[in-house]
Amino acid sequence: MFVSHLECPKCSTSYASEEVQHLCTCGSPLLVKYDLDKVRENMTKEMVAGRAPDLWRYRELLPVVDEKNIVTMGEGMTPLLKLDRLGAEIGMTNLFLKDEGIIPSGTFKARGSAVGVSRAKELGVKTLAMPTNGNAGGAWALYCAKAGIECVVVMPKDAPSIPRSECAIGCATLYLVDGLISDAGKIVAQAVKENEWYDASTLKEPYRIEGKKTMGLELAEQFGWEMPDVILYPTGGGVGIIGIYKALNELKEIGWLEGDLPRLVAVQATGCAPIVRAWEAKAKESEFWDNAGTCAFGITVPKAIGDFLVLEAVYETNGCAIAITDEDTLAAENLLASVEGAFVCPEGAATLAATQKLFADGWIQSDERVVLLNTGCGIKYPETVQCDPPLLQPGETLPANG
Amino acid sequence: MFVSHLECPKCSTSYASEEVQHLCTCGSPLLVKYDLDKVRENMTKEMVAGRAPDLWRYRELLPVVDEKNIVTMGEGMTPLLKLDRLGAEIGMTNLFLKDEGIIPSGTFKARGSAVGVSRAKELGVKTLAMPTNGNAGGAWALYCAKAGIECVVVMPKDAPSIPRSECAIGCATLYLVDGLISDAGKIVAQAVKENEWYDASTLKEPYRIEGKKTMGLELAEQFGWEMPDVILYPTGGGVGIIGIYKALNELKEIGWLEGDLPRLVAVQATGCAPIVRAWEAKAKESEFWDNAGTCAFGITVPKAIGDFLVLEAVYETNGCAIAITDEDTLAAENLLASVEGAFVCPEGAATLAATQKLFADGWIQSDERVVLLNTGCGIKYPETVQCDPPLLQPGETLPANG
Repeated sequence: MFVSHLECPKCSTSYASEEVQHLCTCGSPLLVKYDLDKVRENMTKEMVAGRAPDLWRYRELLPVVDEKNIVTMGEGMTPLLKLDRLGAEIGMTNLFLKDEGIIPSGTFKARGSAVGVSRAKELGVKTLAMPTNGNAGGAWALYCAKAGIECVVVMPKDAPSIPRSECAIGCATLYLVDGLISDAGKIVAQAVKENEWYDASTLKEPYRIEGKKTMGLELAEQFGWEMPDVILYPTGGGVGIIGIYKALNELKEIGWLEGDLPRLVAVQATGCAPIVRAWEAKAKESEFWDNAGTCAFGITVPKAIGDFLVLEAVYETNGCAIAITDEDTLAAENLLASVEGAFVCPEGAATLAATQKLFADGWIQSDERVVLLNTGCGIKYPETVQCDPPLLQPGETLPANG
Repeated sequence: MFVSHLECPKCSTSYASEEVQHLCTCGSPLLVKYDLDKVRENMTKEMVAGRAPDLWRYRELLPVVDEKNIVTMGEGMTPLLKLDRLGAEIGMTNLFLKDEGIIPSGTFKARGSAVGVSRAKELGVKTLAMPTNGNAGGAWALYCAKAGIECVVVMPKDAPSIPRSECAIGCATLYLVDGLISDAGKIVAQAVKENEWYDASTLKEPYRIEGKKTMGLELAEQFGWEMPDVILYPTGGGVGIIGIYKALNELKEIGWLEGDLPRLVAVQATGCAPIVRAWEAKAKESEFWDNAGTCAFGITVPKAIGDFLVLEAVYETNGCAIAITDEDTLAAENLLASVEGAFVCPEGAATLAATQKLFADGWIQSDERVVLLNTGCGIKYPETVQCDPPLLQPGETLPANG
């Protein structure tokens, strides 16, 4: 294991990784730092290529010390699909979909929970708690079940309902709240203090991001250890975009990647776009977004604790931030399924709508290698699809035109 | 491409694979035959190991001639998970889960549709039709969308509802029927005749089974080109168990596997168990099961066209057939999630209930390598989980015990 320490990205204070750590005393999330010289000496591309197709193939860049603590359901190495039919339709020749729907629990949240729960198990955690917009709660509940860790989840009552089933069957203790994830977050903050639980809220423990980081590692490997030009990421809490940025920088430091990082695009909904507003104002942090609401429920995060890290990733890569209407998101969800057969979640669909806008604006060129990061499967969002099929009686015949 | 011809397993009549073929004139399904000597000369284990982690890594044993006709969303190489916690709980040391939930559309139906649709595209099919218990319809709709093939689906009105959304967003023409899949099948049979559509009903075209076969190829590779001792398979139409049997025999013929085949177990529900009844009577075919019904909707098939092939696979491998109550199935679904974090479909859960019974009966030994084949993700069956969480107001606190 090559973790050297935990470090605050705001005030640079160091913390020992051997103990449970949450936020820095300055209030910032902590990031995991590795001895990258040792990683470079101990890990080769050939070793990685010969390993099983899951995220643990990058174990030298992950924080679990003892392999027996790894809690895995085979998550990772999700497909990178070239979208030739859709590309031809909209005039782009190198359009790709990284499909995080093909993973346990059906969303990218499996990555954060696999690594986060594994490390929590290693640290001896008995009970953890978290607020969620749904999918993280479902994923953490199931990985905690496998790890033998008690899991307490607080979720907005308007979140999609399928993750409730995941929490229930994973034996998590689930509460709904008549509010947003920010309200759920306050309830959890109070409860972890009172009960001395492990706080697994977004970026309040340093390991979830290490799991999300593997999306960046996989993209680099799947592109033959080259960089694509643009990655569009649906941004709520933003752990994925921070993780991808961290991953690509670590790969540069160990010499596996060269050149400029891809331009990272934070995609939000017009009904909740604090990062976009901050980016437009060239600000370093975002402001709380009042009356947040969008069909892309997973990115309904009015104020992300890691907003300054998201904005840094966007600024440093010459990326941008863009807000999409629900109407455009749902149109993109339909377009992707009807042309490419990919039934993605609204959050993922928003990245296609964003690509169409940025291409029309000239910000993306037709031959650039552009990655849509779809964070979850559409089957967790059946309510986004209109369907009212006719009912036949046995023995009836179909109309001749089908 | 190494397909030599299509062959009837009942009367041995040969058919050319270059043209559209459905059933043999004797009424039996047709199977794809390969020139296995040429496969042996042209395919090595090392070649396979170096390929992408999807089912097309076995392309020499698949029926698509021109790679440009491959319609893929990255399906295959699903996880094989060792269930150590559950094994310890029930007294078995080598219990495995092959998790077909981690695949596009969330069920193993993606395999049959990927290969079936690719070959249909290659054969120039414009419109195809099929009856389904839900998941096959959803998967074929989406792969057809990607292939540019019109897809007509007829589904029982009581089938789980999420596949309706897959059909709708994949632009399939969907009908519900107030009856069972057997009623849907009759409607499709009439419609394909009247409209000259391609009949994609279970085993009425020879290529779906080639896709399903890849589950057997993957299991062999994931076990290091050795055979497990027992594979339990939830059996409706039975294409998967026929496919696994075919795959393992082909691997034996090319010399990649040795020894006895695993004992194949056909798992059905007590509410629809025609294969079990036939097996108990040592019969070669099954009888239509009246008043079929089970929570494991995917295996509600009163009379499978390939029943004789399923029974052959069971008899020839010294396997067995076993029926599970819905109560035991739902208990197994909960057990698997609460101990291993795996949220599986009821059909998959039935294989765990069957294992528990067969182990208690002494038919399975504690150290045998036993594979539960889970055919789909539980998130497509949220209604199988009871969930009634308390609702909090913002600012409320959690009870101290969580």
